[in-house]
Amino acid sequence: MDQSPPRSSSVTVADVARKAGVSKATAARVLGGYGTVSDHVRDAVTAAARSLNYQPNELARSMTTGRSGTIGVVVGDIENPFFSLAMRGITDVARQTGFTVILINSGEDADAEKSAIRTLLAKRVDGLIVSPAKESDADHLREAARSGRPLVLLDRGSETLDIDTVIADDRHAAENITRRFIALGHRRIAYLTACDTPDHRFRAPTDINTGSVRRRIEGFLDVCQKAGLERMEDWVHVGAVTPEHTYRIATVMLKSSRRPTAVIASDSVIGLEVFKVCRELGLTIPTDLSLVSFHDADWTSVTTPPVTVVRQPVYGLGEAAAKLLVERLNGNSAEATRVVLKTEIVERASVATAPA
Amino acid sequence: MDQSPPRSSSVTVADVARKAGVSKATAARVLGGYGTVSDHVRDAVTAAARSLNYQPNELARSMTTGRSGTIGVVVGDIENPFFSLAMRGITDVARQTGFTVILINSGEDADAEKSAIRTLLAKRVDGLIVSPAKESDADHLREAARSGRPLVLLDRGSETLDIDTVIADDRHAAENITRRFIALGHRRIAYLTACDTPDHRFRAPTDINTGSVRRRIEGFLDVCQKAGLERMEDWVHVGAVTPEHTYRIATVMLKSSRRPTAVIASDSVIGLEVFKVCRELGLTIPTDLSLVSFHDADWTSVTTPPVTVVRQPVYGLGEAAAKLLVERLNGNSAEATRVVLKTEIVERASVATAPA
Repeated sequence: MDQSPPRSSSVTVADVARKAGVSKATAARVLGGYGTVSDHVRDAVTAAARSLNYQPNELARSMTTGRSGTIGVVVGDIENPFFSLAMRGITDVARQTGFTVILINSGEDADAEKSAIRTLLAKRVDGLIVSPAKESDADHLREAARSGRPLVLLDRGSETLDIDTVIADDRHAAENITRRFIALGHRRIAYLTACDTPDHRFRAPTDINTGSVRRRIEGFLDVCQKAGLERMEDWVHVGAVTPEHTYRIATVMLKSSRRPTAVIASDSVIGLEVFKVCRELGLTIPTDLSLVSFHDADWTSVTTPPVTVVRQPVYGLGEAAAKLLVERLNGNSAEATRVVLKTEIVERASVATAPA
Repeated sequence: MDQSPPRSSSVTVADVARKAGVSKATAARVLGGYGTVSDHVRDAVTAAARSLNYQPNELARSMTTGRSGTIGVVVGDIENPFFSLAMRGITDVARQTGFTVILINSGEDADAEKSAIRTLLAKRVDGLIVSPAKESDADHLREAARSGRPLVLLDRGSETLDIDTVIADDRHAAENITRRFIALGHRRIAYLTACDTPDHRFRAPTDINTGSVRRRIEGFLDVCQKAGLERMEDWVHVGAVTPEHTYRIATVMLKSSRRPTAVIASDSVIGLEVFKVCRELGLTIPTDLSLVSFHDADWTSVTTPPVTVVRQPVYGLGEAAAKLLVERLNGNSAEATRVVLKTEIVERASVATAPA
């Protein structure tokens, strides 16, 4: 590392004042950009600050003004294309409105999420956008919402939380896919999700802590029940938290003698693994297995066959969350809003009638 | 929003002290976790802090201790799977060593990058990992390196910057692919990159501001020249900054009467667009066009044919950068290190002999 210039983390306003030959109050006025000083003094202080490599301490300043110009975002898994696209929606709005976005990845871990929110509040972000890992465990969200800094929940939220929320119409999408599968003669329909339960088994939608996924599974089970399909809870597989976990779950499921004839993948990372396992096991999509994945990820349109997906308004979710937050920062004090954006099924070639 | 509890952003140590009936100094000792007080006093202060919803001001604390327990990261495009995977490497090391990672996305914009570094330094991160958008414009990096807080450059860096750097052996990978193409009879070999020049034309590697890409293009041109291929600069296409831009560039290039018979895509986002354009134009990979993409992205193994890629040690790059940074934070004051990680070519089925 370049050792020659002085290390300057401890250069203070007093140091700059001394170098410029002015009082500390005058130096503070120039460096803080307030009050009036002569051009001569301003130049002297600026030159001294530059030569000492002075770094303004924005922290101290933000403690005075109460605004830091930053928005804190906590998401579950930035590697999931869903979240990285939502982030772009957030960042674009932030840039247009003069905010910098600071992101912390929780790894879908509730404790890491709590610590992330604490860190961001301590760093004096002006507001927060959070995609909560668990909805049952929401005390820290209520606390954050009461901190005086606005909070918007992204993609996940629950009816019991009185906090601004932006979600997609996931339940409706799941109902449509399920109806479609049943109309094509499918009876063994599996649903795969990353959400997990303590014993890795699914019994009822209340087991699922992530609202967006819970609503999809509710939709799936409701439609199945109305169509007279029984015990479809047994076809919901939880715990596909990584590609490796998904690979294992999908392999066991698709090697079974009672394998499903149709699969709903709860996100595109899961959809991709199911696709790979099918190829490995020699199962042809869609003749042996119909597949629909949530999220219109880039790969879904280039496979053979291309995969039918639920296109979620992912960019729009991020955009709407950031807009809501900026409105709150601008003084909107109306009651908590719940924005629900429409989803769309993009028909490709991975769905067919059930095999005989 | 829940309006009933008091808004508490302005609750101070003094407020807590008053509520608990103790002195401000005593309350500060309890809330700051230093000094000794009786259990009775501690309980009273803690209860008062809870009832007032007091938020510790970590900023003030970090100004005293000089450590905030956070690492700031600035990357070019978090939507690019390259960066999101590198982020996981960084985050895993950070978690193991007790740091929280704060990310800002620069959108590959040099001004946004400068502002991001300023914001992070002002928020008193302990150290920085930056993937610089432009290497020619590195004053702010030198400045950051002199701020007294360690800086590590990720994936990009230049010989002229005396700063810790972790890069992949990109030049070597590009040389190998180019040699392979030439051995298979290819003479019209195109290289596509997101890097841009002011007039969107490429003349020489010095036009390219991103070191990793410049080194690849140098390797590509060197091997071509040694094989007697002339004016291969004309086959380098810059400005594929978004899928839309890439689509346009690839369409013009592949519709041309002198279209290339082999393409090197500088990242997987570009590789995917080239793949799509080939399908649209009815060009068969690999008989009409050979394709190799940098980055072993998820989609590359599920296409028909699967795509030959340069597997970069992306997770390892992030991991190595974070380890270097943590070592610096633990007092390692050795000279700037330059870590170069090996790349690997993963042979799939997108490369064949040149069409006659």
